Amino acid sequence: MLAAMPSAPRSLVSIEDLSVGEILELFRHAEEFGADLTAWTHLCRGAIMATLFLEPSTRTRLSFEAAMHRLGGGVITVSDASSSSQAKGESLADTVRVVGGPYADIVVIRHPDDGAARVAARYARVPVINGGDGAHEHPTQTLCDLYTLWKEKGRLEGLDVVLCGDLRHSRTVHSFAYALARFRANIVTIPYPGLEMPQYVLDRLRREFGVQAIAASVGELPGLAGKENSVAYLTASRPHQLALFTQPTIEQVQHIDAIYMTRAQRERHAGDEVRRENYPRLSGESLRSAMFKDARVMHPLPRLDEISHEVDDDPRAVYFRQAELGVPIRMALMAFLLGQIRLDAEPPARFAVQPGLSFDAHGGLRCRNERCITNREGSGPVVRDFRLVEEATALLACAYCDKEVRAAFVGNAQTKEYVPVSVPAAARIDLEHRVYFVSEEQAATAAYRPAATGDVAR
Amino acid sequence: MLAAMPSAPRSLVSIEDLSVGEILELFRHAEEFGADLTAWTHLCRGAIMATLFLEPSTRTRLSFEAAMHRLGGGVITVSDASSSSQAKGESLADTVRVVGGPYADIVVIRHPDDGAARVAARYARVPVINGGDGAHEHPTQTLCDLYTLWKEKGRLEGLDVVLCGDLRHSRTVHSFAYALARFRANIVTIPYPGLEMPQYVLDRLRREFGVQAIAASVGELPGLAGKENSVAYLTASRPHQLALFTQPTIEQVQHIDAIYMTRAQRERHAGDEVRRENYPRLSGESLRSAMFKDARVMHPLPRLDEISHEVDDDPRAVYFRQAELGVPIRMALMAFLLGQIRLDAEPPARFAVQPGLSFDAHGGLRCRNERCITNREGSGPVVRDFRLVEEATALLACAYCDKEVRAAFVGNAQTKEYVPVSVPAAARIDLEHRVYFVSEEQAATAAYRPAATGDVAR
Amino acid sequence: MLAAMPSAPRSLVSIEDLSVGEILELFRHAEEFGADLTAWTHLCRGAIMATLFLEPSTRTRLSFEAAMHRLGGGVITVSDASSSSQAKGESLADTVRVVGGPYADIVVIRHPDDGAARVAARYARVPVINGGDGAHEHPTQTLCDLYTLWKEKGRLEGLDVVLCGDLRHSRTVHSFAYALARFRANIVTIPYPGLEMPQYVLDRLRREFGVQAIAASVGELPGLAGKENSVAYLTASRPHQLALFTQPTIEQVQHIDAIYMTRAQRERHAGDEVRRENYPRLSGESLRSAMFKDARVMHPLPRLDEISHEVDDDPRAVYFRQAELGVPIRMALMAFLLGQIRLDAEPPARFAVQPGLSFDAHGGLRCRNERCITNREGSGPVVRDFRLVEEATALLACAYCDKEVRAAFVGNAQTKEYVPVSVPAAARIDLEHRVYFVSEEQAATAAYRPAATGDVAR
Repeated sequence: MLAAMPSAPRSLVSIEDLSVGEILELFRHAEEFGADLTAWTHLCRGAIMATLFLEPSTRTRLSFEAAMHRLGGGVITVSDASSSSQAKGESLADTVRVVGGPYADIVVIRHPDDGAARVAARYARVPVINGGDGAHEHPTQTLCDLYTLWKEKGRLEGLDVVLCGDLRHSRTVHSFAYALARFRANIVTIPYPGLEMPQYVLDRLRREFGVQAIAASVGELPGLAGKENSVAYLTASRPHQLALFTQPTIEQVQHIDAIYMTRAQRERHAGDEVRRENYPRLSGESLRSAMFKDARVMHPLPRLDEISHEVDDDPRAVYFRQAELGVPIRMALMAFLLGQIRLDAEPPARFAVQPGLSFDAHGGLRCRNERCITNREGSGPVVRDFRLVEEATALLACAYCDKEVRAAFVGNAQTKEYVPVSVPAAARIDLEHRVYFVSEEQAATAAYRPAATGDVAR
Repeated sequence: MLAAMPSAPRSLVSIEDLSVGEILELFRHAEEFGADLTAWTHLCRGAIMATLFLEPSTRTRLSFEAAMHRLGGGVITVSDASSSSQAKGESLADTVRVVGGPYADIVVIRHPDDGAARVAARYARVPVINGGDGAHEHPTQTLCDLYTLWKEKGRLEGLDVVLCGDLRHSRTVHSFAYALARFRANIVTIPYPGLEMPQYVLDRLRREFGVQAIAASVGELPGLAGKENSVAYLTASRPHQLALFTQPTIEQVQHIDAIYMTRAQRERHAGDEVRRENYPRLSGESLRSAMFKDARVMHPLPRLDEISHEVDDDPRAVYFRQAELGVPIRMALMAFLLGQIRLDAEPPARFAVQPGLSFDAHGGLRCRNERCITNREGSGPVVRDFRLVEEATALLACAYCDKEVRAAFVGNAQTKEYVPVSVPAAARIDLEHRVYFVSEEQAATAAYRPAATGDVAR
Repeated sequence: MLAAMPSAPRSLVSIEDLSVGEILELFRHAEEFGADLTAWTHLCRGAIMATLFLEPSTRTRLSFEAAMHRLGGGVITVSDASSSSQAKGESLADTVRVVGGPYADIVVIRHPDDGAARVAARYARVPVINGGDGAHEHPTQTLCDLYTLWKEKGRLEGLDVVLCGDLRHSRTVHSFAYALARFRANIVTIPYPGLEMPQYVLDRLRREFGVQAIAASVGELPGLAGKENSVAYLTASRPHQLALFTQPTIEQVQHIDAIYMTRAQRERHAGDEVRRENYPRLSGESLRSAMFKDARVMHPLPRLDEISHEVDDDPRAVYFRQAELGVPIRMALMAFLLGQIRLDAEPPARFAVQPGLSFDAHGGLRCRNERCITNREGSGPVVRDFRLVEEATALLACAYCDKEVRAAFVGNAQTKEYVPVSVPAAARIDLEHRVYFVSEEQAATAAYRPAATGDVAR
């Protein structure tokens, strides 16, 4: 059953809330803002940004606050969860309903729960920007990463970008990977052994962007390469050619446009999983490899020792510049969301075409991600719902944290009957009346019964 | 003995620091501000507000900060008691003496001790606004509550307002009750059993506003009504008529203009006092009662589950709007205290007529409220003093936390002799030389002796 | 070996980063700012100040923030170390590299480690102001102290200033003492017994300013004087005359221009070292001493009970005024560092003449101060280096925390040979190739060998 979705202002919860065209336009506005950061205090004068940071952060918060000051607006801040009304047990929905409206014209939220930013965007009456929600997304980091790469290389399409380190837990890496695929760049993964890119990320890359993972070899990269058999080349452009070969092929990576290092996300997993001495470490020696001749070294910061300090002064080290570019790109984003600049590009299809294509769970589906805000106690009135990702296979994704789940049964909210998703009758149920279930037990709990006639369409 | 009171700028420590006329004028200014919140950044440009929040809060602090940004001023914030100079043992007086003056043009304080805001107002050289001091007052919440009700109903006089839930600990409810009485509205109390309106609040309502409490019946209010015998109707307008009847009368409440729900103040009492399952809970079903036809549902927020979420979309639910109105009304208040708007109404009599009518305790009276800042260690140089509430009965109130105390003896600071308050000689002591005591022991400790002649007047 | 020093903007890490002439000019600008604090919001409009307060403080932070608001700029704040990226293990250098540049046009840092502000100043691309680094320096407090005294007395030269209380741990007192000596004021020390002025401070006063310490007597100062034999008179102007006497002389202090009280720095030493009842306490009685007739009572605040509250209303009590003056003097400082006002005076010689006279330790010298940031774990890539304080005695000072160390050996970075500092060959090594060591062991560890020929110059 389609969930009622309040008409909301544009928000940025996921990087996919912006189309490729919009992103490129934001880059051009960021260029203009960055040319003289102090020349724009008239643009959003009188506007107020609230930064609700219910999880620690310096860089992201200060970057947003600096951007808003550069635009001439005011800032109100909650940077300590323990001194907030949330500590008194208030729901996130109530908090943003008050803060996002009378108090602030735009809200930036960081929250420990996956999907929290989508909840905030649903209840605030003003634009919401996701400043990082659990292990879910951190889209302005991705914007900033893309902008840096675009600025350094003049394009994104066709670039060969290495992602190195903890590829399992880093939301930054996942979002960056999806975005690179959208911009038709190629990805080389060099994970710390055991912290490979998760299968669901690979699945989504394949499904949404036609990206295939090929075993790859990176030759000798001092300090970086883990077990050779965990290196992969992810690309949408070459698999067709590779398919001509009958033998399994190993892509030989010869040239790297950028390497993106990440720290071990110690706060997201048991610390002993990662032994520091084995963790990939980019050093001056690494950079002497021929493959890095034109490479840019990126890092979302904070860095621990994934990049040795001797690299800092190398002209190819752009991680401080990357942090720096966070200000103009965030200025562009906020000026856009506050209606002070206009973008000509179309918004992403998913929002333009199907503004409300989400399925209220109605006692049915439950998100499988235990860290999803829909499964957290005390988060208040979050109505579980799901997007239909692939109708043929009944693949749905949580509308908040994007975790995928495959349904086995589908009901009709009008007749309260259900059938297996595989029977032809399933497809005949109007989209707006469908309710999905993973099991008959779940359907029964939601007070649905098996369709007597085998047909449940209206 | 009259305490020397430094000539201080107007502050808002108690809602009674504003007259009825001034409050109504502030409402009208708030209307103007609220019509376009972003049009006033010229009004207080250059002004600085300090928010000293030595106790957790999000909503109140952000509301003030948003209001000051809307007025074009700057904000400096202490939102964490543990990272402040108070943690090094500095007295509140010293803190506000520095912050309220060179650093800030107006100070908003939240503090865990009752009466702390009055201390701040005495030592700061700039206007101080009480953002909540212990269980004492939270006057801008009251302003906001009154404003919401006035805006929704077009008037305050004669309204029937239900106060429901924890009526014992909620400073918000007490202040609101006094204010409703001042504006000649009627109050229906529906307490959680055991958390009835305290006797001293009822006493003050009777004494200052002529309000009588009558047993009342509210009929059937699903989810709300506690033990029927705890419901009361508080009114200044009808008791005279009721007195014509010889039988005890029960007021039948037929119509409700507004219901004000409050959460259990768990941080102010042992949690097990309140069992959540019995706590009043306003639901969609409650609102179907005929009595609620034109009612407005109010709540100071944060809410836990005193109001079910299904009510949120009911047009009678005004609690989010109530929070929203906190911004324009605080804008009006600050613009007034900073001298940027002028009010024509007279200030309250208590301050206009008797600017210094407080009695230095001089080793005599001690406030009976253990949470009063005058009884706290480490609060620094707070000189205990008292207002004379009722001369005939020697009723005094702590000048900081307003807790009342009845004296038994009164001395003359010039002769150092005292008499019982009940003897005629007591009344002949000049007001400015009087020192009150609760016991002969207390008088002796302060080095006073019984009047030999029975007369202590000069 | 001379350390490469990036060309950096002017910063204020130590009070000695400003010349006497510059300080006096800043006073005159502060006079202008203070005459109407609200008239300067055009001066730094568009500028952003970051306050990185990684150690608790209210007053200093709020004072800076108020000053920046008064100048029309914006403020971004980290006031809680635990909610910052530093908590994730980021180095201070990385933090300031990002914050001091794109995010902020000026950075104010408070940090628990001695020397941290110098690290920040080296890595930030914008001016850095030291808001207090461990027990090292707090130069804007000193500026404010000097300004108050100058304003009250019309001059600094020749004043007799008492420093009283914990003279051992208070960075404020040390910095103030150096500054008083630079301005040719005289100092009377009245320490709490056991917390005397440290020898290294006395040594530096003698060496750099020609100040001699003479035993002194202060007569009877109720509540203040400790053991008579710990009182000293520090002056650069009289020792020559005193030297005429053959008997040890005791300076009889007859007149005091100012007394500077300090609290026991309980957070810097074990609390039981100081018994509160014996700690110096300035009371109304103290002030009745003839010596205090024209004295000003100063205190950096927060005060505990070193000054009794009865003194607050005495016209000689200027400690609240002192805090107040922190705003205009910080406005002047920031307007200067941001290039909005120009000073005609020459900068201090140490920076003008020898911009890079510091010796990279290169595995050699190690700062003897265990609280120095160069000896802290996790502070990141801090290259130890030292200033040559006195060439003849091979006295060096840590370039970060200023702790002095005397070397015993000196090597030539080109030949990797070393000699004792006492041999003539030592002086012939080019300054830019010198590497100092405290021991042969240290030299060996750094891979240096004794000079075979006894000569190590090139």
